Amino acid sequence: MARIVMKFGGTSMAGIERIRIVAERVKREWDAGNEVAVVVSAMAGETDRLVNFCREASSLYDAREYDVVVSSGEQVTSGLLAIALQAIGVPARSWLGWQLPIRTSDGHASARIADIDTKALNASLAEREVAVIPGFQGLAAGERVATLGRGGSDTSAVAMAAAMKADRCDIYTDVDGVYTTDPRIVPRARKLNRVTYEEMLELASVGAKVLQTRSVGLAMKEGVRVQVLSSFVEATDNPEPGTLIVGEEEIDDMERQLITGIAHDKGEAKITLAEVPDKPGAVASIFTPLADANINVDMIVQNIAHSAGSTDVTFTVPQADMPRALETLESNREAIGYAKLVHDTRVAKISVVGVGMRSHAGVAAQMFQTLGERGINIQAITTSEIKVSVLIEEDYTELAVRVLHTAYGLDADDAA
Amino acid sequence: MARIVMKFGGTSMAGIERIRIVAERVKREWDAGNEVAVVVSAMAGETDRLVNFCREASSLYDAREYDVVVSSGEQVTSGLLAIALQAIGVPARSWLGWQLPIRTSDGHASARIADIDTKALNASLAEREVAVIPGFQGLAAGERVATLGRGGSDTSAVAMAAAMKADRCDIYTDVDGVYTTDPRIVPRARKLNRVTYEEMLELASVGAKVLQTRSVGLAMKEGVRVQVLSSFVEATDNPEPGTLIVGEEEIDDMERQLITGIAHDKGEAKITLAEVPDKPGAVASIFTPLADANINVDMIVQNIAHSAGSTDVTFTVPQADMPRALETLESNREAIGYAKLVHDTRVAKISVVGVGMRSHAGVAAQMFQTLGERGINIQAITTSEIKVSVLIEEDYTELAVRVLHTAYGLDADDAA
Repeated sequence: MARIVMKFGGTSMAGIERIRIVAERVKREWDAGNEVAVVVSAMAGETDRLVNFCREASSLYDAREYDVVVSSGEQVTSGLLAIALQAIGVPARSWLGWQLPIRTSDGHASARIADIDTKALNASLAEREVAVIPGFQGLAAGERVATLGRGGSDTSAVAMAAAMKADRCDIYTDVDGVYTTDPRIVPRARKLNRVTYEEMLELASVGAKVLQTRSVGLAMKEGVRVQVLSSFVEATDNPEPGTLIVGEEEIDDMERQLITGIAHDKGEAKITLAEVPDKPGAVASIFTPLADANINVDMIVQNIAHSAGSTDVTFTVPQADMPRALETLESNREAIGYAKLVHDTRVAKISVVGVGMRSHAGVAAQMFQTLGERGINIQAITTSEIKVSVLIEEDYTELAVRVLHTAYGLDADDAA
Repeated sequence: MARIVMKFGGTSMAGIERIRIVAERVKREWDAGNEVAVVVSAMAGETDRLVNFCREASSLYDAREYDVVVSSGEQVTSGLLAIALQAIGVPARSWLGWQLPIRTSDGHASARIADIDTKALNASLAEREVAVIPGFQGLAAGERVATLGRGGSDTSAVAMAAAMKADRCDIYTDVDGVYTTDPRIVPRARKLNRVTYEEMLELASVGAKVLQTRSVGLAMKEGVRVQVLSSFVEATDNPEPGTLIVGEEEIDDMERQLITGIAHDKGEAKITLAEVPDKPGAVASIFTPLADANINVDMIVQNIAHSAGSTDVTFTVPQADMPRALETLESNREAIGYAKLVHDTRVAKISVVGVGMRSHAGVAAQMFQTLGERGINIQAITTSEIKVSVLIEEDYTELAVRVLHTAYGLDADDAA
């Protein structure tokens, strides 16, 4: 007997027919004698509908009332799944955020889970009752409804698994696991059996959108074993194994690859300040006002100084923040003292990720060489312990991903 | 300064544009210095959508989970109205049923309000905050969500008004008040300025569907002054006075009419048992099994005995219950000992209602005479202290209502 959290997204909950399939899948785990808590999203499209109502009602809506409105979508699906489970003979009940309760911080509309009271829940599970828990919601100070921000149901599921000391947290999604890269770009991309939290964080934050980044961070902190599975296989079939996201110690050396995956991200914009005075404090005068404007700067490259005692500084920001970033830099032009401001949104960030590179030199060199052989120019470079990222011209994105996937031996044929 | 409960139905809450109009109307009362609590229904059609989800999920759904699902409609509109009020400068917050809380009985899906805690609410009103309260919902034992049954928001509003000791409870509806009869049948029907609780109960229960019957009974018991108003006049205009529903003592003799209104109801079916033995216990043998089957019998007529020592018994039941009633009677045929069972759904009940008839003889006689003059045959008669009802052939419904409306001097021209 195991204790399991199962999480189903909006596509799986879109309509009674699909909810019935979810119920069958839950029944399989329950029939096997497991204690099961299910975390559900709202029906696909429902949260958007509710968010739009709030926006229409007022552009400056009260986040506490927004939370009352948008949390209703998961309330509906949790009640319906409880009914569907009972209909096939599985005792079940819904537990709304305020009923457990799931205590959160006061940051309405983007609250963080602070504490989950599992006393009543444990008593219910001990009586062989399935607990159905609406994701995305909790209870803030003053006994007000709070929500966790978009995609928050993944985080709800991981937090529930941690609080319940669950043996695993199965996240059913539109994809059947985490791949070495985007299979739409590289048909020979392979599904990974295991990936570490750290790798998943790097892959998720650079565009492999399988799990909400916050939920992966929480799983790492709490040591929750997360499994990503497809919700599209028949409920009665044996489920295909998905991808298990675990601590590094659970991946044995034999199966460890040098590189786990290749990610790409077209959502960044590049900004270059030309001829910035090469003196102490110059870089701070650029990035302090950007930080004050709450703009997240990612890659930063400072070239060596020109002979004239000036330097060029290049960095990237999310494309959505670019207009504000340019405005901020222009209004600080005198303080910074740059000669020219250049920007470019036609860039892509390509990242090579893998915990194996910690103990293996030459990963970056191989990346630069592979791209160079295809004539792909590198505009900026950043590295972390388990990742090397380069900025290239956007048009080369797919080519770069494909050649790197092959170069690092990730193609399915190579592995077979 | 007064303390007011305002209630808005699903048509008034259907979409943000309409919710904005409701907000303007609330603002008028708030601007006048009043303490205001607003009770809202779900958007028109939303409760049906949610009920259908539950039915689709299981024909035998758990009423506790049904309540979790269907209560979400009012949760959404209460949050949205709070946002819309804030947008026009009116401080407001929503109070969900579990937040006040509104304690109910355990009869999930058709719970009754037991007690409302107004402590937090009073503190909020004292700070000039408008309270927005989702109708239809409350909190049952075990801290589970409960709903009051369809149309329950009227009852929520009256119960709130009683708990808050409100000066009045304004119910905004699709109609602009209570009329002497259905204006679609009699264009010269007049809007009543005042009507007593008792009259309203009789008018509501025989088909003048303006307010949920339960809410009128509660208002009578608690002495809540209820006003029925149209939600379709411009929010910025002075609202047309609607109909005030009050105790009999508040209607002075001068304005008291003999007859207040004429109601009709095509929802009944007539059943006749021919040649029932005319002996003690015979009638009980008919109605006891019907009561056991939870079938509500309305009019009952027992003719004088035939020479052969038998009698005919005629009664009416709701059309929806007729198949079950016939089944029950047939399976008890031997015990009852009737010769023939006849039924007819092509009947209508016409009722003349007015507290004035208590002190005035001849109301029934005038009714029979008026109908007789037009050749309308009376199939059954029942009377109460303030009502005379007759059963006639359905085809004569509109004619009967019109001639009675004129005969009792209710036509608008007569009153002018």
